[in-house]
Formats: sequence, structure tokens, C-alpha cells
Amino acid sequence: MAFPPPKFVTGLKCFVCGSTYQYGNMMTCPSCGIQGILDVQYDYDALARYFKHESLNHRPLDHWRYRELLPISSEISLPNLQVGSTPVYDSPRLARAVGIGQLFLKDDGRNPTSSLKDRASSIGVLKAIEFGYTTIACASTGNAASSLAGLSAATGLQSFIFVPERAPEPKVTQLLIFGATVLKVKGTYEQAFDLCREACVEFNWYNRNSGTNPFLVEGKKTAGLEIVDQCKDHLPDWVVVSVGDGCTIGGIGKGFQEMKRLGFTERAPRLLGVQAEGARPIVDAFCSGKDLVPSEPHTLADSIAVGTPRNWRRAIQQMKASSGDMITVADEEILEAMRMTARLAGVFGEPAGIAAVAGLKKAIEQGIVKSNESALVVITGNGLKDISSAKQAAGEALHIEPNIDALSHALPVLSMSNVLSQS
Amino acid sequence: MAFPPPKFVTGLKCFVCGSTYQYGNMMTCPSCGIQGILDVQYDYDALARYFKHESLNHRPLDHWRYRELLPISSEISLPNLQVGSTPVYDSPRLARAVGIGQLFLKDDGRNPTSSLKDRASSIGVLKAIEFGYTTIACASTGNAASSLAGLSAATGLQSFIFVPERAPEPKVTQLLIFGATVLKVKGTYEQAFDLCREACVEFNWYNRNSGTNPFLVEGKKTAGLEIVDQCKDHLPDWVVVSVGDGCTIGGIGKGFQEMKRLGFTERAPRLLGVQAEGARPIVDAFCSGKDLVPSEPHTLADSIAVGTPRNWRRAIQQMKASSGDMITVADEEILEAMRMTARLAGVFGEPAGIAAVAGLKKAIEQGIVKSNESALVVITGNGLKDISSAKQAAGEALHIEPNIDALSHALPVLSMSNVLSQS
Repeated sequence: MAFPPPKFVTGLKCFVCGSTYQYGNMMTCPSCGIQGILDVQYDYDALARYFKHESLNHRPLDHWRYRELLPISSEISLPNLQVGSTPVYDSPRLARAVGIGQLFLKDDGRNPTSSLKDRASSIGVLKAIEFGYTTIACASTGNAASSLAGLSAATGLQSFIFVPERAPEPKVTQLLIFGATVLKVKGTYEQAFDLCREACVEFNWYNRNSGTNPFLVEGKKTAGLEIVDQCKDHLPDWVVVSVGDGCTIGGIGKGFQEMKRLGFTERAPRLLGVQAEGARPIVDAFCSGKDLVPSEPHTLADSIAVGTPRNWRRAIQQMKASSGDMITVADEEILEAMRMTARLAGVFGEPAGIAAVAGLKKAIEQGIVKSNESALVVITGNGLKDISSAKQAAGEALHIEPNIDALSHALPVLSMSNVLSQS
Repeated sequence: MAFPPPKFVTGLKCFVCGSTYQYGNMMTCPSCGIQGILDVQYDYDALARYFKHESLNHRPLDHWRYRELLPISSEISLPNLQVGSTPVYDSPRLARAVGIGQLFLKDDGRNPTSSLKDRASSIGVLKAIEFGYTTIACASTGNAASSLAGLSAATGLQSFIFVPERAPEPKVTQLLIFGATVLKVKGTYEQAFDLCREACVEFNWYNRNSGTNPFLVEGKKTAGLEIVDQCKDHLPDWVVVSVGDGCTIGGIGKGFQEMKRLGFTERAPRLLGVQAEGARPIVDAFCSGKDLVPSEPHTLADSIAVGTPRNWRRAIQQMKASSGDMITVADEEILEAMRMTARLAGVFGEPAGIAAVAGLKKAIEQGIVKSNESALVVITGNGLKDISSAKQAAGEALHIEPNIDALSHALPVLSMSNVLSQS
């Protein structure tokens, strides 16, 4: 079956050379190669007539409520899984601990496969169906892979996932349970990535790669649309997002710009992008104003351990447009922020997501963010996805004999260590 | 600060001797001891005047929308975490695989700490605050513990969790990250349970034990209230729930009865209770009509591996009242259902939750549930909580050399194994 094209999409525009292309099944710019990331263009004047406050009131609470702002055909069936509409929590105790007047957490770990990546994968599977594929593939060991496996299962697509041989067993398990065919490539992540790209061409599979696929980032954009939609008159001064490839912050920034253009808000929040000290190529490019220099990543926050980010231009463009800033945090600061966020706000996030809390704290200390401002931090994934990092942050259990005397003796020690562990 | 009592609660009634008590800080019936589970009583005539269809339309989507039907003071502050309002998915491919006309899944793994237990813990922490405690405790290694730790963190209560020494490290990590004090008791689960009860008395801590605490099951009830609220005119013929202690199915059944009594539905769905073959004391009591005989549990579905269930009377009462039934499933059937549910519906549930899918399939095969009926299965927890069981169900990755020729040779084998792995 042939689907009509997305109603409000006018074309695809290259971030490097500025060329525009007709809407269609494309990855990167034919002139610029893999550097030429394409951005989906919309007819905002037409959208402004259809997409209004009132039209949102009666729509279901998931990210398809922004359907006209997504590059999907109006005639395609949506997956059943409820993607998006993740909660925003006002977290006063954590706010005090990081030193800011008001702090919100948006817990995107509550998506169907427990990460923000479901926003992108849900678009990916629909594009695959629209373009006539029955199989979709990606190279990843992380949230992108489990999300693709889950959304493929929900929509009946076959999925192939390429992982490096050293991929951790728990993450591979999540892929297999969803019925993905998991290929452990005897080599590095880059070899798995290259083999996936080659296989997509050779076997006519759709390539779900957020970096190079122009449509997936539009799914991530819905986190930005949602923040404006949910916060209404309490839109925070800053929105803080961890940065790996650059897609997520780039997408969220685009969402803000669109909501402003469509009259849902008069101002867009400023973006604070946070990278790990050991994986900071976008911070370096942001500060130097020069082209990105790839590097070898070293951080425990695996979802943002990206040495060769593809979407750095999009990320930097959005941060500059919002008068935003960037900062880096050490792994130790991430672990401390994991404790603080779990203990003071009841949210257990994965290290990459929580890096943004650490970044906000540091930005306040450095005066980048003022203590009388407000901020919203996007928690990009559930901490259950990476128990081994959490273990480093968590502390230790206390061993006691099974009687009340033993407990009574232990209690004074416990009270002391509890006081020490509160920040 | 003293809180006024919950507005519509009239008292507490013992399941064994039928005595009623004034509302207050009680656990079990003083005459019947630990067997005397108490049931919270409400003034439904008064409720019927306040709690109407229209009043729900403009309430937030979480389980506090049923606030008048919960035993909490109208003046207490609610935790920020969004508990409940978990999605219900129509799952036609899984329906075909289990042999029923229409099948819905309610994914309660999407609660804040990833299980249905958040519904109960959120009530537990509020009761602790209302009764003036600053510390709350429980004995558990499972969802009840992580949920209590998370909700305590969100509300600023101190939590003590007693676990047997052999408790698995990943589960202990989730407790520690939330700042719970975890006490590894050198002994069995029963010794940890007893020490916790003793400690609550000795140190004036509130006891969060779903089995004996009369208020917690009211939180689980909200899953039943929600099913009626969400399904509206498409209320399924059957609601299928896995059964360990009996609290969850008992609570859900109570929710249905209340929604019927308050005029939200004309009929309550029939309850199908599912236990593991190796932990079936409630099934035996249900079939024999005699009192429950405790036994040693053996099943991989740890959340329902309960040999001495406390709330069996409540569970059986609700199943009988709904003209329901019970069934048992083998661990192998649970693992098969985990694969089916993940692959055909995109939902990765923990074994205990998925046991209900296996039970439904068997009940259809045995003619208990008819193939032209409809059913809703409650998935009680996220599969990420128990990766080791999922691993048994998941299958294997395929190792390949990093080149397209190796992949081409592997593909025919893969296609074959994929066909075989589809149910």
C-alpha cells in the first residue's frame, strides 16, 4: 500500500550546504555525504491554521497528539504503545540541594521501553512501514536498540540489531526477548555500525540510526513540544539535557522553536547541554566555534559516550539560538547526582540522564544559571537499565544477625552514616 | 500536625470474625491476631453523592483522582511521583496467539519504580505521615521494597528494609540508591520478616506490609478503579491477575465492586487468578473450599512465590463474588508467555506479571474462558527488574565476523530460526 506523504512537510534541508530536497526516503545529503545531516522542513503558516491550543485539549496523552508536526503520513496506523506524555515533577528538595529556586524533572524513563529513545524509534518503525520495508536495523547496545526492538515487536516489523561482541548480557537480553535478531559482531562498535549500514543497502532493510536518519530526531522533538504543552505558564528559564550525539538536545530545541512559532509560548527556554568530561567533543566545538574533532570517549554514562557525534551542528545551532550554554561533568559528579536525584526526588535515572542534574548543579556554582531562575532537567532513561553504574553510587547494605539486640547496636552507626550520606 | 481522618471511611472490618473497629492506626484484628486481616469500610451512600462521572473528567491522570475512595486524609500532601494511570493496550496479535477475540494489556510496569506496588507504597507513606511516623519499614527483596524506598525518598521519610542475606545484588542496589537503609539479615526471609515486625514495635516505625496492613490494599484497588474508568463501554469479560499474597487480585476486585456500586459500570468483570504450579496455596484453598495450607514455594516468578499468603480470604472472596476462577501455570509456560508478550505486543513484563498471560492461554484451552470473550491482563512489573529470568526466555545472539559475506551466509539460518521462534 502506498501512503500519502506527511501533509505539512515541505522538504529536507542540509545542515552543511543548505541544499533543499523533496520529501522522500533519504538519509544524508547526496552532495555532503555522511556529514550532510538533513533537517525536515514544514509549512508553518499552514500548520498555524490547523494546530492550535484548542485542538490539543481533546487529544490522547501520548506524543501522537503532535501528529501534524511529525513527518508521518496521516494514513498510517500508529503503534499501540503509549510513547511520550511522561510526567514532569516539581522537586523542591532536589532544587534546594542543587541551589536553584525551582527545579522540575521530566522522567522520560517512563516510556514503553524505559527511555526517551522510544520517541525516535516510534517514528523509525512508521517510516520503515511507509517506505515499504518489512525489516529495520540498527547498530547499538543501548537504549536505541532496545527501543527499536520493542517498537518493532509492537508493529510487527522484523528487527536486526548489530552489537559489538563485548556488549553486556543484560542489554542483549532485552533485545532478544522482543524477538530481535541480535548479531554479535566480532569487532568494535564501529565495525558493527559499518556492517549494519552495508547490510541495510545489501538486503533492503531500513536503517534506524538517529545520527544520520533525518526523521528520527523529529520524534525526539516531541519532548520539547511536550515541555511547552505541559508547563504552560510555568515554562522554566532553562532546560537541561545531556548530550551524546546531539540529536536529543537538537530535537528538543527544534520543538521549542516550533511551539514559539505556532504561538504556544512567547519565549523558548534556554538550553544547557551537558557532556561527560571524558566525551566532550560537542562542548569543545561549541566553545571554539570550530568544526568538531572526534575523540575516544571515556565515561560510565554509556548513552552519552559518543566520540564521533553526527548531529553536533544541529545541537550547537539550537543551543546558540536559545542563548544557551554547555558544561562538562566528571563521572564522580554523575554518581553523586544519581544519589541526590534518587534520594531527594524519588527518581532513579540512568547515568547519562542524571548527568544533566550534575551539569545543572555545576552551572549554578559557576554562575551560568542563577539561583533565582527555574530549570527543567530531562531524565533520558530508567536507572534499571544500568544497575552496575548505580551500584557504584548506591553505597552498601549492613549485615546483621537476626535479632533485635544486634539491630539496636547497629542503629547508632546507621544514623551517623545516614546523616553523612544526605547531601 | 494532626490530620483529620479520611472523610468517607467508616471503620475497619475483620475478614475472619466480622468485628468492626473504629478507623485508626491498626494492623490486624485484636481478637484474631495475624489471621484477622482488616478491610477498610466506606460510606458508599455519601460517596455516591460526591464521586461522579463528571467529577473525574477534569482530574489529573494518576491514582489520586480516586482520592475519596482512598483511606487518606483530605489535608495530606500527595507525593509528586505520578502513580497509576498506566496505559491499557489493545493487543490483537497476542490475542490471536492465545486464542481470544480481544485482549488488552494493562502495563503497570510503567509506574514510578516500575511495578504495581507503587500504588500500595504511595498509600503506605501517607499513612505513616498521617500517624506521625518519620520512619517506615518492610521486609522484602522485591517490588514492595524498591517501591517503598522510592516513595519514601519522594516524601522525605526514612526507610529501613530488611532482606535475607541471599538477596540478589541488583535488587539491593535499587533500594540503596533511593537512600533506604538496607539490613541484610543473616538468616531466611521469615527471620527478616519477623525482625522487621519486632523492630517496628521497638523503634516506633510504621510497618509497610501489604499482607497485614489494612490500608495498602486500598492502593492496589486503584488498578481496578482505573480499569473501569479507562475501558468505559469496552469493559472486558475477564480480568486476569497473577496471585501471590492475594492482595492485588483482592484489591482489584474490590475496586470493581465499588465502581459498580457507585454506578460507573453495570457489571464487574470476572476475575481469573493465576498462581505458579510451585506456589499454589490459594488455588488449593479456592478449589477445596477449606482453609489455606501454607507450603514451600518453588517458582522463578519471585513476586508470586509466596508460600504463606496473608490475604487469601480477601482474594477468594473477590474471585467468588465475580464468578471468577483460578488456574496454575508451570514456569516453562511463564517463559513462553514472556516471549509471546514481548514479541507480539511489545511489552516486556516480569515473570510474575506475565504468568497471567500464560494463565489466560491455559484457561482458554481448558474452556474456562471462551474464545469469543474479551480479557484484560494486568502486567504487574517491568521485565528489567528480573533480567536473569528473561535470559532463560530470550534465546541466543548469533556471533558473526564483521563482513557482509559472513552475514549473507548466516541469514538463511536466521530466517529459519525466526520462523521457529514465532508462536
